[in-house]
Amino acid sequence: ITGGLLAERQRASARNGIPAGRRELETSGVLDNFRRAAGAQGLVPRGPRFADSDAYKWLEAAAWESRRSGHPVGDQSRIGSLVAAAQHADGYLDTMTDDAYADLTWSHEHYVAGHLIQAAIAQHRAGGADELLPVAVRLADHLGERFGPGRDERLDGHPEVETALVELYRETGRRRYLDLARWMVDSRGSGRITFHEFESSYFCDRVPVRDQESIEGHAVRAVYLAAGATDVAVETGDTVLLDVLRSQFTAMWASRTYLTGGIGARWEQEAFGDAFELPSDRAYAETCAAIGLVQWAWRLFLATGEASYGDAIERVLYNAVLSGVSASGDRYLYVNPLELRSGALAHDGRSPANGRRAWFDCACCPPNVMRLLASAAAYLAAADESGLWLVGYASSTVDTGWGHVRIDTDHPHGGGVRAVVTGGGVDEWTLRLRVPGWASGVEVEAPGRRVSVADGWALVEGAWHEGDAVDLSWSVAPRLIAADSRLDAARAAVAVEVGPLVQAFEEIDNPGLEECFVLPGARPRLDGTHPDGSARVRLDGVRRPASGAEWPYREIAAAGDPGARPVGEAVGLTSVPYHAWGERAVGPMRVWLPVDQVFSG
Amino acid sequence: ITGGLLAERQRASARNGIPAGRRELETSGVLDNFRRAAGAQGLVPRGPRFADSDAYKWLEAAAWESRRSGHPVGDQSRIGSLVAAAQHADGYLDTMTDDAYADLTWSHEHYVAGHLIQAAIAQHRAGGADELLPVAVRLADHLGERFGPGRDERLDGHPEVETALVELYRETGRRRYLDLARWMVDSRGSGRITFHEFESSYFCDRVPVRDQESIEGHAVRAVYLAAGATDVAVETGDTVLLDVLRSQFTAMWASRTYLTGGIGARWEQEAFGDAFELPSDRAYAETCAAIGLVQWAWRLFLATGEASYGDAIERVLYNAVLSGVSASGDRYLYVNPLELRSGALAHDGRSPANGRRAWFDCACCPPNVMRLLASAAAYLAAADESGLWLVGYASSTVDTGWGHVRIDTDHPHGGGVRAVVTGGGVDEWTLRLRVPGWASGVEVEAPGRRVSVADGWALVEGAWHEGDAVDLSWSVAPRLIAADSRLDAARAAVAVEVGPLVQAFEEIDNPGLEECFVLPGARPRLDGTHPDGSARVRLDGVRRPASGAEWPYREIAAAGDPGARPVGEAVGLTSVPYHAWGERAVGPMRVWLPVDQVFSG
Repeated sequence: ITGGLLAERQRASARNGIPAGRRELETSGVLDNFRRAAGAQGLVPRGPRFADSDAYKWLEAAAWESRRSGHPVGDQSRIGSLVAAAQHADGYLDTMTDDAYADLTWSHEHYVAGHLIQAAIAQHRAGGADELLPVAVRLADHLGERFGPGRDERLDGHPEVETALVELYRETGRRRYLDLARWMVDSRGSGRITFHEFESSYFCDRVPVRDQESIEGHAVRAVYLAAGATDVAVETGDTVLLDVLRSQFTAMWASRTYLTGGIGARWEQEAFGDAFELPSDRAYAETCAAIGLVQWAWRLFLATGEASYGDAIERVLYNAVLSGVSASGDRYLYVNPLELRSGALAHDGRSPANGRRAWFDCACCPPNVMRLLASAAAYLAAADESGLWLVGYASSTVDTGWGHVRIDTDHPHGGGVRAVVTGGGVDEWTLRLRVPGWASGVEVEAPGRRVSVADGWALVEGAWHEGDAVDLSWSVAPRLIAADSRLDAARAAVAVEVGPLVQAFEEIDNPGLEECFVLPGARPRLDGTHPDGSARVRLDGVRRPASGAEWPYREIAAAGDPGARPVGEAVGLTSVPYHAWGERAVGPMRVWLPVDQVFSG
Repeated sequence: ITGGLLAERQRASARNGIPAGRRELETSGVLDNFRRAAGAQGLVPRGPRFADSDAYKWLEAAAWESRRSGHPVGDQSRIGSLVAAAQHADGYLDTMTDDAYADLTWSHEHYVAGHLIQAAIAQHRAGGADELLPVAVRLADHLGERFGPGRDERLDGHPEVETALVELYRETGRRRYLDLARWMVDSRGSGRITFHEFESSYFCDRVPVRDQESIEGHAVRAVYLAAGATDVAVETGDTVLLDVLRSQFTAMWASRTYLTGGIGARWEQEAFGDAFELPSDRAYAETCAAIGLVQWAWRLFLATGEASYGDAIERVLYNAVLSGVSASGDRYLYVNPLELRSGALAHDGRSPANGRRAWFDCACCPPNVMRLLASAAAYLAAADESGLWLVGYASSTVDTGWGHVRIDTDHPHGGGVRAVVTGGGVDEWTLRLRVPGWASGVEVEAPGRRVSVADGWALVEGAWHEGDAVDLSWSVAPRLIAADSRLDAARAAVAVEVGPLVQAFEEIDNPGLEECFVLPGARPRLDGTHPDGSARVRLDGVRRPASGAEWPYREIAAAGDPGARPVGEAVGLTSVPYHAWGERAVGPMRVWLPVDQVFSG
């Protein structure tokens, strides 16, 4: 990725986020935990049970960033040596417990192992420091000897290791890692894992994966497991399992996903809610859940070639993930609501009323953002025997066996993308460009070539020569969005999208936001651009001072009767991209703006 | 109370609820805990830290029920002896810990003491078994010796004892109990009590009571503290504190209360949400919080004589409290939402998707319902030097120094109330009847007397003789209700009220409820009565089959543009009183019905 919003965020993360994360590994005690496990005296474990994973996710981010930038990032080797030194002789590795696997419900030992394996594979693929892979292999072998059918049949309370084991199988060719992952996926759902008020759905253990109609429970756990199950389905050729997972994705997308692509509506147990239970103000929509969703959707795309998964990735990435990190790359949101109310109490460290924060007691999100951003290029394009698939758009270069292609675009801000062949073979192959599901006015220009648009793809076929270009363009007009009426919080309200970006309205641009309504008949219109290149969108509205009533319910004569309403003043309502909300000030914010209807008073 | 809905619920609780509660005290281990504390061997503590309070709340209920019915209820003396035997020589009493007051944040020892004191006072006032009062006095003295300024200055994590101490002061005249309660109220708010994710607001310790603009944090803790603070303000003549508490009530009522009178919107930490954060589906609205709110509002009424507190009590009692118990008196809801979705997952023992349950692991609500119902008569009328105040209405007899008055009504179902003087003195005194804030078409008939209606009261003055009658009547027409647009979940929706009863629409009466909309212009109309005497209310509506879209958001051309909508069929929408929802079947339920507007598709 050479330019545009994604590249800016990658650079900001590299410049500010990753170095700050490295410092946090020291100050939060994570590295001391490894030193203690390696024999250092006078230290006590610090941080949550899964603290080791902060180091592993940071290592993974540093590895991807090294490859991305071509420059060494941080002291990966030094930390890798610390990790290796903390490993037990039998392969066990977890610095937070001295009683191996005693409490798998909460210890996260498999989860943590998964992050180590992923860091090791990232280092290996990035071509940099490589000492972690043997550590990861020893740990994976240790897991395989200890756990499985007829051995220790308990499961970790937090899925994650499944994707890592399949990836390690791909890296090493050792089937036993795939078998272990498959066993873990198939063993879930017996209702064995519970803990006080945390019922088995929280631990992805209420219903077997194959019997689940919709994804449920703790959102991060659920999408991590779904991603691992998809890997297992693909690698074992299990089309039945794959179909189940596709249905689960469809059900989730149809009834449990925010307009932003955020998932996991509930603060309580960080869980998926019931169908259409999607409050705006108390949306939890954890940043990590959005990251896991990108990972799952990407696997489903690879397994199916369906463009709709590309639409999903784009929506989640540009809205639900990017909202979780500041433009400066080092301030994070844990929770990503679609509405912040005036006077919202920051009752919890994760409360968005705190604004973006440098770190959290439970620091899962920051290094997760770092590793996703550093590896974002991996979610843009794919190649198979037929040619090249362009799934996401950023100014970038794509090098495959088919040749070299340069992508010119200022996506997500512009009106299209140009793909230019810059070299490589002259065989006939197909260039597929994803036609975003939200796009209207789509045109494809490929002089002298056969072009077909179907199923969300523009297919351009033929032999390719240096300089050949394809232009895909779409309307840049902002779009007005309405929601299914079963979404209580979005009823009689509208949202605005521009390209793949959901917009947010903030108090700082719209004084008295909570008293503002959109005028019936209003259409969103472009009104210049923000300094970051995003579109400034305006909607005609009206501000009606709140009544100040002592009881917020009133009798009306008939359904649809507005009753007496305060006189309003005309206002122009201005938005910013949702991912940029709270950057200037933390105050009232809304994605869904009520329409000034008879019921809005 | 001699007849009507409240009397039926009291009798059902006495017939089924209180005996079942007595059995639970045995099976859940609560009484064994007292036996163990009294020296019995071979027992281990069972239940939550505050398990003792289950016994005390049951004892309080049994005492009030004995007085109400005139018959002895249960083996109160036997349990009282067990309690007395468990008391330490120094007065300490709590069976769940052997380390007195070591963990006041969670141990609930003051809270539990408060419930003992209230049970003892109830027994004393009921004129039945009376052995608990000396036990309670010894415990209160022990608390006073241990806690207070310059002594142990820690506070219990759960307020409750404050009201009990003031009541014990009233009962004994010993000022030190009032002083202790006042110190407890004044000491809160220093932010000292926290525990992991539970911030100080959860423990009513973020802001001093006198500095709090709105009530916040864990709803039950907050209203218990507010009730105790109101008692302190009244008994110490602290009008500044009283004004603060009135403002807090007003702010809560204006922005943090459901139409049902339920409070504490959040499942997470069982807390008040931000202003206007009142989701229908995830309303927590704990039954205990509603009970505490009745207690607080009653104290504010006594302190001010304002009719609006009577309106509040009526709303909360008939909707948010009564929904917490079945007509049979022995099945309870812990959580009282305003919407249940189809396919709602009962992920937790408290989930309303379970329907009403006989008991809970945390069994705070059932015995709380029992003691409130058994003492409900106390919230209906008051007397002062000027005469008699009729605050709530039920067929009943009221005996005061001013005389005897019989109340004839089938409230909450009918259209009024008749008060008949049945004996007593002939002095001049004022009869005040509360004119409900929701009532229209109000008429007062008091032949030959001066009647004035002001500030929510109908005042009828003069000398009274046996047979003198006053009739207060109002319209029985159902009312259509709309909400402040800041309540996201109620936007573009209507609810129905009849008298003080909020109505609910259930799937069992309205197939496809989640696809039903109210027709614009529709007015609610009476359509006969249910077997329980409540009004059957109908609204004209339309059912539009859901789209089944794979993404629940759609582009529209302009704000207010309906877009294509599925063809609907006309339906008549039928309601039951909210408090009776879930009695026949547990399925989709809505208090707020969307209006078939352009945005409702």
